[in-house]
Amino acid sequence: MSATTNISHHDLSAFISRCLTACGMPVFDAEQVGTLMSRADLMGQDGHGVFRLPMYIKRIRASGMNMTPNFKIIEDRAATALIDGDNGMGHLVMQHATEVAMEKARQTGVAWVGARHSNHAGPAALYPMMAAQDDMIGIYMAVASANHMPPWGGIDMLLGTNPIAVALPSKDFPPIVLDMASTVAAYGKVKTAALRNEQMPEGWMVDRNGAPLTDPKKSSEGFLLPIGGPKGYGLSLIFGILAGVLNGAAFGRDVVDFNADASTTTNTGHMILALDIKAFADPDVFKSDIDAVWRQFKSSELMPGFDEVRLPGERMHSVTQKRSEDGIPLSDALRENLNVMAADLGVRPL
Amino acid sequence: MSATTNISHHDLSAFISRCLTACGMPVFDAEQVGTLMSRADLMGQDGHGVFRLPMYIKRIRASGMNMTPNFKIIEDRAATALIDGDNGMGHLVMQHATEVAMEKARQTGVAWVGARHSNHAGPAALYPMMAAQDDMIGIYMAVASANHMPPWGGIDMLLGTNPIAVALPSKDFPPIVLDMASTVAAYGKVKTAALRNEQMPEGWMVDRNGAPLTDPKKSSEGFLLPIGGPKGYGLSLIFGILAGVLNGAAFGRDVVDFNADASTTTNTGHMILALDIKAFADPDVFKSDIDAVWRQFKSSELMPGFDEVRLPGERMHSVTQKRSEDGIPLSDALRENLNVMAADLGVRPL
Repeated sequence: MSATTNISHHDLSAFISRCLTACGMPVFDAEQVGTLMSRADLMGQDGHGVFRLPMYIKRIRASGMNMTPNFKIIEDRAATALIDGDNGMGHLVMQHATEVAMEKARQTGVAWVGARHSNHAGPAALYPMMAAQDDMIGIYMAVASANHMPPWGGIDMLLGTNPIAVALPSKDFPPIVLDMASTVAAYGKVKTAALRNEQMPEGWMVDRNGAPLTDPKKSSEGFLLPIGGPKGYGLSLIFGILAGVLNGAAFGRDVVDFNADASTTTNTGHMILALDIKAFADPDVFKSDIDAVWRQFKSSELMPGFDEVRLPGERMHSVTQKRSEDGIPLSDALRENLNVMAADLGVRPL
Repeated sequence: MSATTNISHHDLSAFISRCLTACGMPVFDAEQVGTLMSRADLMGQDGHGVFRLPMYIKRIRASGMNMTPNFKIIEDRAATALIDGDNGMGHLVMQHATEVAMEKARQTGVAWVGARHSNHAGPAALYPMMAAQDDMIGIYMAVASANHMPPWGGIDMLLGTNPIAVALPSKDFPPIVLDMASTVAAYGKVKTAALRNEQMPEGWMVDRNGAPLTDPKKSSEGFLLPIGGPKGYGLSLIFGILAGVLNGAAFGRDVVDFNADASTTTNTGHMILALDIKAFADPDVFKSDIDAVWRQFKSSELMPGFDEVRLPGERMHSVTQKRSEDGIPLSDALRENLNVMAADLGVRPL
């Protein structure tokens, strides 16, 4: 591991913001993206934060993303909306979609908002967590921005790591936040293993004959495995249909690999559901009930080899607390890389 | 395997109906449950159909289930409802909940209906499939009727196989129907292996030390494993909260093992979401798009060792076609068992 330097999330957010402004993004939008991208780093989702900025900027410079999008609500019902993101940054599209969903849910109890012509939007947890901050339950699904998985039994790469995230509020404990790919390993983990010259455990990937593939440098010769075999394949397919096909967004063969191709419009699809807890229970009672779940689960007797039971979102919460005090540890290699980019854009380095 | 006799689903439905009528269930309700329970057998979900009738009737006779429930909508918003099932049969509660959800979704685009004080409702797929028959997408979750899984890293049994089912319509192809437990194996598969004196593969269960447990007769000494390790644990927890805690239904330590205890009210929780496809797209276009997904996936090049790619719901659809023509193959042992029960109830045998 290379040396790291801690950067405050405020400084990181400001850096992201000035890079994007230099690329032609309106100032308020750039601030919003800076906040959300640095929040990913704050939450410990390092693979979805500032690490992605060079790729985003490469895409912007290749005219692959629209800096001044005009979001349009194409379909609008009391509890649903379909938003066309006009090829804007995914973060902006999904923050907007989440706000629309929450506003509708306040009126109707629940709302489902889909988006198309969007782009990569960072970690899945970001958007349902906005709902959870406001006594709502949030559910998010997305079509991943590249295909790394065939249907079960096949070898054509038609599916991605299509993730789901669900967030719900507690009272005295952290919110419960599940954020997971439908594959055993996210593709970022494969890339990290390759960078570190490490082998992958069996179960992450197989080759075209179905044999375990453990050398991450050969990852292009194989596929990610879904969780639970055909079950995870089914989840990836369903999440992809709900976030993609339903919205008229890319799915299957139409998915553009955003790593390999920076200029083609990705037509990324996502969905966000917001459920107003008030429509089912007194939010205070519900949150106390979730606290009781925390207590019950945390006090479970342990299996040998484990030192605690964790709830989904627990580690993320403690990382967030720590990093908001100590700053975000950025590897010097990444920081140098970002500063080369900043010099190129003519903005102040990090 | 014992010998089997084929029974038409009409005959099976009528048999279930007259048994339940003899137990005091109103005739129309008994017909409805007969239709839904025999549909489970028709769909090939043998562990959730007539096989369960003796257990249901044992519960009814132990006053563990209410034959004349009064469903109440406790909370009601434009796109949500919370239904109290008054300890009625789960099938009746959930058919009602699904109808409410579909009616609301027609008005608002999407609706989420939760239920409490319900009971086991058969296979998860039944209810979302009702939505799919009407150009809607259905999503169902439930708190399983017994706990067989600890939280990840623990050994207290606080979770069940909590399932999810999602159904969506196609045009020329069968509907896509995902119906899965959040565990690698459903508990019924363990019971079946025990009955057949077969060993279980590694990966289904572990003992209290985390070592593989492969003897299904020792299943009470161990736990089911979630799909994808901590991911499936997270899914089971989330499905349980959304179907249970949110509705004021049993979850965690409050779950009553319906196999072991026939008289205590289970307070089973479920949820159903119905999404009206019209709120997002022309249903005809959407269904053609799903057909295109079918074609793309079915034509994938195959991995060695596989003879086809299947989509979720494909096998169930072909079993349904076959059984609606040939009848449902019931083992003679099960049939005999059912007929002993019928004699006891004073109704005509199967």
